[in-house]
Amino acid sequence: MISKEQFNEYREQCLKMLDEAGIALTEHDRQHIEVADFGLSDLLHTGLGLVVYENNDRYCAKELMLLPHQTCPQHLHPPIKDADGAVVDMGKRETFRCRAGEVYLYVCGEPTPRPKAKPPDAKPGCYTVWHEVVLRPGEQYTIEPGIWHWFQAGDDGAIVSEFSSTSRDEADVFADPRIRRMPESGQQS
Amino acid sequence: MISKEQFNEYREQCLKMLDEAGIALTEHDRQHIEVADFGLSDLLHTGLGLVVYENNDRYCAKELMLLPHQTCPQHLHPPIKDADGAVVDMGKRETFRCRAGEVYLYVCGEPTPRPKAKPPDAKPGCYTVWHEVVLRPGEQYTIEPGIWHWFQAGDDGAIVSEFSSTSRDEADVFADPRIRRMPESGQQS
Repeated sequence: MISKEQFNEYREQCLKMLDEAGIALTEHDRQHIEVADFGLSDLLHTGLGLVVYENNDRYCAKELMLLPHQTCPQHLHPPIKDADGAVVDMGKRETFRCRAGEVYLYVCGEPTPRPKAKPPDAKPGCYTVWHEVVLRPGEQYTIEPGIWHWFQAGDDGAIVSEFSSTSRDEADVFADPRIRRMPESGQQS
Repeated sequence: MISKEQFNEYREQCLKMLDEAGIALTEHDRQHIEVADFGLSDLLHTGLGLVVYENNDRYCAKELMLLPHQTCPQHLHPPIKDADGAVVDMGKRETFRCRAGEVYLYVCGEPTPRPKAKPPDAKPGCYTVWHEVVLRPGEQYTIEPGIWHWFQAGDDGAIVSEFSSTSRDEADVFADPRIRRMPESGQQS
């Protein structure tokens, strides 16, 4: 659990990045930045900030903010079932578009020799996919449902626009069993 | 039909706006800007530029560019039916988020006295909804399927991010019967 001071300091860092990138926010947006530390209480290594622009039953759009070398840990978006077990959503598909900085994205596939990112300390099995996709400003990549992925910002941090189908963060499956996906504060996406 | 010169000049104006707003594009994006003149050959009054980031069978994301006082004419997004007449999509829902400039959006509802926009010359029946929503940078509005709407940029033009369900521009219904929705060039969305 991060402290209120850590949360506020992190939020200010996110706002500074967004302001420097020229991304306009309302006062409401500024007050509702979401901070995810994934329950690991190691925000500077594992975590991210989010501005959720829209999340409805058809599509979702967010801005993701990462500090230098900060990591969003390995996860996938599973099919969503109703109470009777029927699949009501095949799982989130998402497109990451880099807006500022540099992002190293890892997905299932042929492992990349000498990857640019080094994951945070974690037990074996928490970072298992090593096919690297480097995203620089203006570059984007789409991840299909059910595909393991994780990503890390480069030296200058990164801002990533996420366009997707409906977001249900609480359903995400993480490779690290210690992780729980809840925002520490701000608006739930 | 606009000329190649008009298209190129308009594209350059769009790129200048995007560059000034700090919106990063790849060279591919720059080469594939779509220009819509809606078949009216009056681009400076009725038209817009588009960068289509992603359009798949679940969601869509675009950047829309409008010159000062340029108008996207009144239209709606109807239900989509298959060959047997069954509805396969209830119609596009879309969220407009103003990134730069100012946008005057008009939707069904109580007409606004003294609206800020003046529509382009058109026959009666082409601009019939007058409930005004003003969007300044960071502000956004979501339009449900089947709702008539049109919008116009303010004095400085505008850039608008559009987040939506699947986009099928060719299915759009326009109030002005002269209009056909085809891009003059670039990538079809």
